[in-house]
Amino acid sequence: MLKELKERVCEANLLLQKHKLITFTWGNVSEVDDNRELMVIKPSGVAYDDLTPSSMVVVELATGKRVEGSYNPSSDTPTHRYLFNHFEKVNAVVHTHSRWATIFAQAGRGIPALGTTHADYFYGEIPCTRAMTPAEIQGEYEMETGKVIVERFLDIDPKSIPAVLVNSHGPFCWADDAVKAVEYAVVLEEVAMMAYHSMLLGDATYMPMDGHLLDKHYLRKHGSHAYYGQIGK
Amino acid sequence: MLKELKERVCEANLLLQKHKLITFTWGNVSEVDDNRELMVIKPSGVAYDDLTPSSMVVVELATGKRVEGSYNPSSDTPTHRYLFNHFEKVNAVVHTHSRWATIFAQAGRGIPALGTTHADYFYGEIPCTRAMTPAEIQGEYEMETGKVIVERFLDIDPKSIPAVLVNSHGPFCWADDAVKAVEYAVVLEEVAMMAYHSMLLGDATYMPMDGHLLDKHYLRKHGSHAYYGQIGK
Amino acid sequence: MLKELKERVCEANLLLQKHKLITFTWGNVSEVDDNRELMVIKPSGVAYDDLTPSSMVVVELATGKRVEGSYNPSSDTPTHRYLFNHFEKVNAVVHTHSRWATIFAQAGRGIPALGTTHADYFYGEIPCTRAMTPAEIQGEYEMETGKVIVERFLDIDPKSIPAVLVNSHGPFCWADDAVKAVEYAVVLEEVAMMAYHSMLLGDATYMPMDGHLLDKHYLRKHGSHAYYGQIGK
Amino acid sequence: MLKELKERVCEANLLLQKHKLITFTWGNVSEVDDNRELMVIKPSGVAYDDLTPSSMVVVELATGKRVEGSYNPSSDTPTHRYLFNHFEKVNAVVHTHSRWATIFAQAGRGIPALGTTHADYFYGEIPCTRAMTPAEIQGEYEMETGKVIVERFLDIDPKSIPAVLVNSHGPFCWADDAVKAVEYAVVLEEVAMMAYHSMLLGDATYMPMDGHLLDKHYLRKHGSHAYYGQIGK
Repeated sequence: MLKELKERVCEANLLLQKHKLITFTWGNVSEVDDNRELMVIKPSGVAYDDLTPSSMVVVELATGKRVEGSYNPSSDTPTHRYLFNHFEKVNAVVHTHSRWATIFAQAGRGIPALGTTHADYFYGEIPCTRAMTPAEIQGEYEMETGKVIVERFLDIDPKSIPAVLVNSHGPFCWADDAVKAVEYAVVLEEVAMMAYHSMLLGDATYMPMDGHLLDKHYLRKHGSHAYYGQIGK
Repeated sequence: MLKELKERVCEANLLLQKHKLITFTWGNVSEVDDNRELMVIKPSGVAYDDLTPSSMVVVELATGKRVEGSYNPSSDTPTHRYLFNHFEKVNAVVHTHSRWATIFAQAGRGIPALGTTHADYFYGEIPCTRAMTPAEIQGEYEMETGKVIVERFLDIDPKSIPAVLVNSHGPFCWADDAVKAVEYAVVLEEVAMMAYHSMLLGDATYMPMDGHLLDKHYLRKHGSHAYYGQIGK
Repeated sequence: MLKELKERVCEANLLLQKHKLITFTWGNVSEVDDNRELMVIKPSGVAYDDLTPSSMVVVELATGKRVEGSYNPSSDTPTHRYLFNHFEKVNAVVHTHSRWATIFAQAGRGIPALGTTHADYFYGEIPCTRAMTPAEIQGEYEMETGKVIVERFLDIDPKSIPAVLVNSHGPFCWADDAVKAVEYAVVLEEVAMMAYHSMLLGDATYMPMDGHLLDKHYLRKHGSHAYYGQIGK
Repeated sequence: MLKELKERVCEANLLLQKHKLITFTWGNVSEVDDNRELMVIKPSGVAYDDLTPSSMVVVELATGKRVEGSYNPSSDTPTHRYLFNHFEKVNAVVHTHSRWATIFAQAGRGIPALGTTHADYFYGEIPCTRAMTPAEIQGEYEMETGKVIVERFLDIDPKSIPAVLVNSHGPFCWADDAVKAVEYAVVLEEVAMMAYHSMLLGDATYMPMDGHLLDKHYLRKHGSHAYYGQIGK
């Protein structure tokens, strides 16, 4: 059952590799069925090159019980389930350890909206969750991870900011379907990389180059005295 | 009509992908015809892999009216038109969200001329536009974007500095034809990346390595006592 | 003899190239046989494209004597031997000059545990050795390199932190077999790159983008007034 | 004439592209013949994809006169000639605008020896030339560029430090033959990139991750309570 959904979730997982968002098996994508009763997710610890639609795992959203598939589901399954059970308009979730988003997560900072690339996809800062408590970490850790995400979005519409950074961990994104969720993960990485460097550029100072040297180089390639290349051969 | 022009504009758009200047559909190239009456531009939101010369859109320069093509033109069309209508020696325009140029745009800073790579193409600092006013943003936004660019070039010859950074947004470049404009976009990215890091290098300090270790490693590979590799086997 | 072991060590060396951990011949992988009497290691200074299982060199662990192979073994062989002779649970060692790990080694700093990517593989900070003394450098340098590593792990279990940075030099990793050791070298590079940038993000400040511009860009792509792409064509 | 030399110089120029040291035509390699009377060099402004051994240009070392080839020689030819005429043990010269070396050149700083990767190839800091005077820039600029390089090496043996950074410009490297010179250009880029980041790491501070989270992640993948992957399926 769920043939088409497994194919899309498998395709979306493979897109993570194509877009260089993952190392080894460090990522997973899931999507719920139309009734929001079942969830299809990547198996745990299986190499991307070995993924096929039939290796995807089907899990009951309410109980977490595996109802189809021969592999264990991703160890992050309880986080995905918690998000689906609390973000009712979200159909697909993706988790990665993509470099630039993780860099912000490790610094415990959200990604500020610094430009229109960001604004084209995310309606404000991409937030970072609070640090989890020892009890949360030692308890149902993966479920509690979902909980701190939902807590962080109490006053934010997950549809307008479809991504979060989990403190000291990495990003989760979500969307209407699994392929779209991966698109958001790609954009997240792009805006994180650019925000990082815009932020550090802040107070940087410099010595402009010598004006004579500027003249020399520009004018040896441009205008009537140029002599670069095969001009005037 | 405009067969050759459509082919060149299509080719130039595809070069953006080849040079890794774009993610998804985040970029567009246009060029005017010889009479400066029509403009050929990329369709809006169409994947690069699906672009063909016949999918390019022809727009009237004076009115913005689409006169050929089945797609909507790029949503940035009014910016391109404004530039062509005010920079009379410019035949082609390219817009991207390339990473390093966008990093400067997001910081609201121009790219200073710090070396001869820059001077070979740009005759001075690549300027950043002023922030737009709420009225400009809420009005004919894309046209107003062209307007702040032209305002920034009041005292600059667009032929000698064929690029600009739009504040909080990203770069535009221009040239005699669409392929050349993309070449400038590539160089812009290169000089932005290098200027960024030269600027941050400013006051960095360091501890030089131990002199004995320097001796050891240099001399185990060089001179009469070398023993690295298959020497003296 | 040791056919299977030579194949695995050769494969592991080639994985260094695949994962872009090496430039030219700057890396080597070794693994001991089941009796911990012999060690198979890459030949010194031989191009990766020319490596075959039969070009691997077999060396006696106790004496360092070459017992098979027509090439000289890696010049780092005494370091590998010292590690095997003192880390009794370690079967394979890899050494590279991979960029981000080497950046920390050159700064004389360990890689702090800043996130779960790190914690998934390394149970705490990846330590950096102390600077070597002139006598150590001018003596049996490569063996002394092994010695400072082992000294650094006096109070650390090498199984729980399977990597070290040699001061002013670069990383060594170890594991149960040669392929696994390369996996750790890949992860080390990943966590080093991310730790570096999380650390520098520290006090960075920034100017958020204008709220009107955020509205404009988000809403031209989302909601009922969107006009980006082929909507409403 | 000089068939073999032209082939090697052509091959070395193409290696620049393979190692991603150049953008467009921004680089050139040359080598002298055995009598040090002639020099073979890349033609100016010709695309790398169009280079063949027969497109290489032969120039008289003493006079700069072209004695073979249908193209103009590289516009940097006078710099190459000056180096050959003053560094008598140098047979080949390469010039690029490779990113990290150029970043140091633009900051007017040498690349300090910070680690053994550097020490394996360069016996100390890779120096940066002084800024050129207006008279030098406006005079025989390319020859003067050679002159400031040679001036910088008054007290340095060019064989032990086979590279220099020209202030506000970019690197030159040299060696016994053209292919070896490109190898040095590759290593230069690598040590520049790593030195840059080691230098900036200096005073960076950070917040280590929570100890409970470290335990959780390490122990869910390692030891008897691990539950990641297909363990205990």
